Amino acid sequence: MTTDTSDIPDGSEIPADDGRNERHRARMVRKKAVIDDKIAQATRDCGVIVVTTGNGKGKSSSGFGMAVRAMGHGMKVGIVQFIKGAIPTGEEKFLRRFPDECQFFVMGEGYTWNTQDRTRDIAKAEAAWAQARALLRDPEIGLVLLDELNIALKLGYLDCAAVIADLEARAPMQHVVITGRGAPQALIDAAHTVTDMTPVKHAFAQGIRAQAGVEM
Amino acid sequence: MTTDTSDIPDGSEIPADDGRNERHRARMVRKKAVIDDKIAQATRDCGVIVVTTGNGKGKSSSGFGMAVRAMGHGMKVGIVQFIKGAIPTGEEKFLRRFPDECQFFVMGEGYTWNTQDRTRDIAKAEAAWAQARALLRDPEIGLVLLDELNIALKLGYLDCAAVIADLEARAPMQHVVITGRGAPQALIDAAHTVTDMTPVKHAFAQGIRAQAGVEM
Repeated sequence: MTTDTSDIPDGSEIPADDGRNERHRARMVRKKAVIDDKIAQATRDCGVIVVTTGNGKGKSSSGFGMAVRAMGHGMKVGIVQFIKGAIPTGEEKFLRRFPDECQFFVMGEGYTWNTQDRTRDIAKAEAAWAQARALLRDPEIGLVLLDELNIALKLGYLDCAAVIADLEARAPMQHVVITGRGAPQALIDAAHTVTDMTPVKHAFAQGIRAQAGVEM
Repeated sequence: MTTDTSDIPDGSEIPADDGRNERHRARMVRKKAVIDDKIAQATRDCGVIVVTTGNGKGKSSSGFGMAVRAMGHGMKVGIVQFIKGAIPTGEEKFLRRFPDECQFFVMGEGYTWNTQDRTRDIAKAEAAWAQARALLRDPEIGLVLLDELNIALKLGYLDCAAVIADLEARAPMQHVVITGRGAPQALIDAAHTVTDMTPVKHAFAQGIRAQAGVEM
C-alpha cells in the first residue's frame, strides 16, 4: 500500500500506522461490498418527490440548495413560494439574477398571524397553486420547488388530493421539492424521499434575531 | 374588512365566509401578540454556528441554500468540502461560476469505504481544515460552509477541541454552517442552531438511483 502525500503540506504530521490503518482498510472493503450491493439494487431513474417537513431549521434552504444543484446540471427550475412573500429574501435576490434558468414566483403575503385573513390567504394559495400546476406540466422544467406548500395544505387552504393528483400528473422525470411544517400524511405517502427536520436547538431561543444569509 | 381579489383569477371560487374567517382573524391576532413578544426578546445579532446532522436527506443541500441566501445579500462565501470530492456535483458546477463571490474548495477524495486509506483520509482532512481556518479568519467572508466536516470529526480525523477553538476565534459576525452525519456533542454544545435531519423515507430504498439535481 502506497500513500502519496506529495500534495500535503507537512507529511511529518501524519500519525504512524500502528495497524489501525490496515484494520480500517479491511473494514472499508467489507463496507464497500455492502454499499455496492445496495447501489446495484437501485437501478431505476425517475422524477422524485422530495418533502422536507418538521419544526427544525433547514427545510426551505435545503430546497434552494437542490434548485442550485439542478441549475448546476443545466436543468431549468421553477420556484413558487407559498405563504412567504412579505420580506424580501436572499434566495429571491440571488435567483432572480438568472431569469433564463430559474422562474421565481413569490405568491404569499406573509405568515398567517400577520395576514390575519383566511379568505384572502386561501385565494392567494389557489393562485399560487395555479402557477405551480403550470410549472408541473412544463417538460422544460427539471425541478420544481414548492416552498411552504405543506403549510397551505395543513391549514386546508388547498385540497390535498387535488394537489397530489397534479403532482402525479407532472412532466416525466421532473423532480419536485415540497417544504414546510406539518406535511400531511397523504403527501408523505405520495413522496419518494421525506425528511423530518427535527430541532435540537435554535439561535432564536437564545435571544438571537433572524440573520440575513441564514434565516432569510 | 375588505378583501382585494383583483389579482386572483376567479374570485367566485373563494368560499363564503361563515364566521370562520372572523374566528381565524381573532386567533391570528392572539398568535401575533405571542410571536411579536418572542421577536422582541430576540435582540442580539451575531455570527451563528449552524449544524445540520442526522441520517436524513437535506444536510448539505440546506448548507448550499444558506450559501446562496448569503450571496443574495451581497455576502462573500467560502466553502470547503470534506470527504466528498470523487464525484463532480451540481452545486460545485453552479457555484464555480461566481469566483468573486464564492470560494469553493473540494478537499475530499470520496467516502471512506471508497478511499479505504485512513492515513491518507486524515492527511486530506488536515489539509481541508487548514483551508477552512484561513476562511474562518477572513473578515471579508460572511458565511463559511464546512460540508461533511461532522464526518471527519466523528471518525477522529480532526481534533474536535481544536476545531471548536478555531470556530470560536472566527471573524466577528461570520456565520458558519457545518454539515454531515454524527455531529459530536461538543460541537452541538458550541453551535447556536442544530437540526437533526431525521429520515422518514428515501427514494434509494425504493430502488431509485441518486438523481442529478436532487442528491448530487
